[in-house]
Amino acid sequence: MDKMSKGLAQVELMNGEFGMNAVENVRRKYPELAPFVVEFGFADVYARPGLDLKQREIATIATLTTLGDAGHQLEFHLRTGLHVGLTETEITEVLVNCIPQIGVPRVMNAFQVWEKVLEERRAAAAAGSA
Amino acid sequence: MDKMSKGLAQVELMNGEFGMNAVENVRRKYPELAPFVVEFGFADVYARPGLDLKQREIATIATLTTLGDAGHQLEFHLRTGLHVGLTETEITEVLVNCIPQIGVPRVMNAFQVWEKVLEERRAAAAAGSA
Amino acid sequence: MDKMSKGLAQVELMNGEFGMNAVENVRRKYPELAPFVVEFGFADVYARPGLDLKQREIATIATLTTLGDAGHQLEFHLRTGLHVGLTETEITEVLVNCIPQIGVPRVMNAFQVWEKVLEERRAAAAAGSA
Amino acid sequence: MDKMSKGLAQVELMNGEFGMNAVENVRRKYPELAPFVVEFGFADVYARPGLDLKQREIATIATLTTLGDAGHQLEFHLRTGLHVGLTETEITEVLVNCIPQIGVPRVMNAFQVWEKVLEERRAAAAAGSA
Amino acid sequence: MDKMSKGLAQVELMNGEFGMNAVENVRRKYPELAPFVVEFGFADVYARPGLDLKQREIATIATLTTLGDAGHQLEFHLRTGLHVGLTETEITEVLVNCIPQIGVPRVMNAFQVWEKVLEERRAAAAAGSA
Amino acid sequence: MDKMSKGLAQVELMNGEFGMNAVENVRRKYPELAPFVVEFGFADVYARPGLDLKQREIATIATLTTLGDAGHQLEFHLRTGLHVGLTETEITEVLVNCIPQIGVPRVMNAFQVWEKVLEERRAAAAAGSA
Repeated sequence: MDKMSKGLAQVELMNGEFGMNAVENVRRKYPELAPFVVEFGFADVYARPGLDLKQREIATIATLTTLGDAGHQLEFHLRTGLHVGLTETEITEVLVNCIPQIGVPRVMNAFQVWEKVLEERRAAAAAGSA
Repeated sequence: MDKMSKGLAQVELMNGEFGMNAVENVRRKYPELAPFVVEFGFADVYARPGLDLKQREIATIATLTTLGDAGHQLEFHLRTGLHVGLTETEITEVLVNCIPQIGVPRVMNAFQVWEKVLEERRAAAAAGSA
Repeated sequence: MDKMSKGLAQVELMNGEFGMNAVENVRRKYPELAPFVVEFGFADVYARPGLDLKQREIATIATLTTLGDAGHQLEFHLRTGLHVGLTETEITEVLVNCIPQIGVPRVMNAFQVWEKVLEERRAAAAAGSA
Repeated sequence: MDKMSKGLAQVELMNGEFGMNAVENVRRKYPELAPFVVEFGFADVYARPGLDLKQREIATIATLTTLGDAGHQLEFHLRTGLHVGLTETEITEVLVNCIPQIGVPRVMNAFQVWEKVLEERRAAAAAGSA
Repeated sequence: MDKMSKGLAQVELMNGEFGMNAVENVRRKYPELAPFVVEFGFADVYARPGLDLKQREIATIATLTTLGDAGHQLEFHLRTGLHVGLTETEITEVLVNCIPQIGVPRVMNAFQVWEKVLEERRAAAAAGSA
Repeated sequence: MDKMSKGLAQVELMNGEFGMNAVENVRRKYPELAPFVVEFGFADVYARPGLDLKQREIATIATLTTLGDAGHQLEFHLRTGLHVGLTETEITEVLVNCIPQIGVPRVMNAFQVWEKVLEERRAAAAAGSA
């Protein structure tokens, strides 16, 4: 399997249809970036053994919260975290856990993205149970 | 139990004698900071339910690697990660997992600290088995 | 007085009705964050002796301008600065004072928020004097 | 020639009518900042010998991509880069070149701004050739 | 008075002999940087009206603590803060005031520099009173 | 040619024996990182067409100066810049060019590394001509 295929399989494993659509969007809009996202990010790093996917998403969500101006990537990985099985409480706690190290503002910015993800999730659940 | 005692108990739980010595050092050198480290960091945040200690240290190590100029705090939490049961491989993978989001230099800086922690650990193990 | 009450009193002292509404908004939208904003930020830090409130807001506005991606928090503290008695000129000078240390772009981003606060203030003054 | 005139001549040289309009906008909205942008940035730094303007814009675009929350300034310098003669491919490569050092998210944020500049350029070219 | 002379007078006003020696050191080691430090920093910014020197140093110390990897500049401005009349307590409180916005590690790094400045000051006072 | 070989050839092209030694050091000390440095950095990015090596090093030096806590990587790329043919003046100007966007402290930190590289270069030239 070539590296692009390996990376795409990892995207699908980690974030299902939402992930594949997001990557397709990157490939169409920023073709030079797509190999770095898929082959480098997903095939070379996120597919490595040694951490399970829940552990990887805890690390990635903490990293993106700390980085501070990566709202789109954070939203992607908050959804990925839910998709690989982190609970809402676990993700909320990853954000809270950052406060002593980076302070309140960047964590509040992350909560703003997280709240948006949760609202869409509740709306989808409500629509599904209707 | 007051918050300082709760925080100190959490320090001991998470990092044993090394942790208590480090906190004692902060209390002596930077007395104004000690309540923020112990009460705010350990009692109000790290003692929260919702994540186990291994998950918390994955998040904290990723945060400090991303922050980039917090070598002393990173060293403390690399040791804490080992103390709460993360394997060497898991911690190495947390560092590698940061590369796509923050690039190589800050991860290499974190590896430099990690290598120092590992060397001391191997030296202690060698001395212990002598 | 418990710490939440002490923090809320400090919010009201520092930013009046605007501050209380903003904190109420945080409590409603991000309940996990509210204790960190009110108890930790306002009761444990901003209510400390040693600096008067004008001095604290000079420091906080400089910090948030430097942090760079904290527009909402900067807007809150620009309003707080005016509320505790900093003049418009003093606040403008705090922003200009950051240029040698952090360069023009983050200061220009801060001026964009500051201009918005000033426009609302002028509109309110015009409405009040009508 | 005084420093303001020297700076304005440098703005016009580097970014033509677009640059002069942007500077005029800064002078009107943030009069305290204008001397720092024009005299300090353009007269004291960008007009220095030792690098040609294409080299300067490569450096400035890399700096603003790395800084990470300076979208307006990045847009200005992406346009300046084109104006001084960098090709679209060269600018795209400056952004890609940042990935190993700063990771994907800040580069993707820069690509979002770059895509906007390219779309406007294509629309203008299409209108011009109509 | 030309701008270099104005800047040097401002350095001497703000930090006396220590400041003049530090600037002389910059002029000797990094001659290209000296005009930016003296003319731009001290003449164009720190000599502006609108804030007194104690207010300026509160802002500058907060900025440098937040920037996080500027230990030499922070040390210079901690000494400058004392020279223009800030008390030790006021400076300590500026550092503590940063915790809610930027977290503990960068503030602890600043305390490490501050402790060094205080120790030298106490040693000098002890020597002076001997 | 596999990607590791392609990357190593690019290291040698860009930084000769010094570069090969530095990469060998990374491979020995941080084996998990070496593929990211050599295959990802040098083969996938720095070997791309579209910019010549002098242009790439201008961009990389500006990026690392801005990142601010990457002294080892900056030193490596300052040497690489000289090796691919940038003049001392061009590199000095890349550093100065960052001042308007990021301020003085991070540029002064970069000058400190640059001065070290220049001193070693002059010592080597003096030894060579003896």
